[in-house]
Amino acid sequence: MAESSKPVLYSYFRSSCSWRVRIALALKGIDYETVPINLVKDGGQQFSEEFQATNPMKQVPAMKIDGITISQSLAIIEYLEETRPTPRLLPQDLKKRASVRMISDLIASGIQPLQNLSILKQVGQENHLAWAQKVISSGFTALEKILQSTAGKYCVGDEVSMADLCLVPQVANAERYKVDLTPYPTISHINKTLLALEAFQVTHPCRQPDTPPELRA
Amino acid sequence: MAESSKPVLYSYFRSSCSWRVRIALALKGIDYETVPINLVKDGGQQFSEEFQATNPMKQVPAMKIDGITISQSLAIIEYLEETRPTPRLLPQDLKKRASVRMISDLIASGIQPLQNLSILKQVGQENHLAWAQKVISSGFTALEKILQSTAGKYCVGDEVSMADLCLVPQVANAERYKVDLTPYPTISHINKTLLALEAFQVTHPCRQPDTPPELRA
Repeated sequence: MAESSKPVLYSYFRSSCSWRVRIALALKGIDYETVPINLVKDGGQQFSEEFQATNPMKQVPAMKIDGITISQSLAIIEYLEETRPTPRLLPQDLKKRASVRMISDLIASGIQPLQNLSILKQVGQENHLAWAQKVISSGFTALEKILQSTAGKYCVGDEVSMADLCLVPQVANAERYKVDLTPYPTISHINKTLLALEAFQVTHPCRQPDTPPELRA
Repeated sequence: MAESSKPVLYSYFRSSCSWRVRIALALKGIDYETVPINLVKDGGQQFSEEFQATNPMKQVPAMKIDGITISQSLAIIEYLEETRPTPRLLPQDLKKRASVRMISDLIASGIQPLQNLSILKQVGQENHLAWAQKVISSGFTALEKILQSTAGKYCVGDEVSMADLCLVPQVANAERYKVDLTPYPTISHINKTLLALEAFQVTHPCRQPDTPPELRA
């Protein structure tokens, strides 16, 4: 691969963790190159030796930026925040920052890993949907409660933050797994508000370079 | 519960995520009060209404500090770092900070959630050990590779960081689930070095206020 000064994002259109990073890049107006890693084709391109050299965890996203390689979506977003602080994705107020990170981690550690592709494979095809619905509903019940005290227009107050970058892709997963969202009016409302923003639209799974034609919108 | 100016940590002696926070508090010399939440007694005290009001995710750790309640161990540690910066748990160098967060998230999102109590319950008693061994080994294989390029004396260079606070409790879980650590010499070596530090010893699961007598050491 040729050396490039542009950051490179290893991404899969449908990966909710990749989407988080794409939104951060879009909001901050960072120009980048996408290298699609198809998680299902060829038995999973994330398992290729070439990609494992980039991310030994065999997961997307991973990012090459400023001469280093970072994996784990929130670590990437925190690095972008520290090196490209405008517009900020963490509030100035330290207590609000704590709320943003708490909500982000609730999704990134408490929900998403339990319903990702590799776990669903181990759970077995027949239990797939019930398992995903259970872990997402359980997490959303807690999140709905927390948002009732932190949310303004968005997850924490009226500024878009890292928490919102986690929320929207997780709601998309919930919809994909047919989770009933009726019990989560705060989550649903914030999600709808965020989806009206350009940065969430241009980074949507249905509009990526690797989105299959039949799923494009 | 009486108002207190001391931070309150809701903790379980054996919870690896609680241990992460205990180490941060010890390193920073923060005096705190422990409220033990027994995750197995009474069907799990984390499910009590009282505790759910503190953390709707029904998990430890949670912390009451400076008038707010924070859950999610890394969010708590980041808040402690921002409000009580000495000694620092994130390096000054931004690229090293990214490595610290990447390793922390690899453990906190990529390993621990897949082997925690609630998931193991769903997997079933007979598959328990094999499941835990598989997810820990898979994560450790990646981590070992990453540490080969980031580690000095500790996970990232020669300063104790948030990554180390995640490493030691995860190795303890690995040992509990009888994971063969031979393939991970870097992890094993760093773990041993860290366990010699007082902050890791006084916060160890075998020395907590809620450690049962037969497990004390």
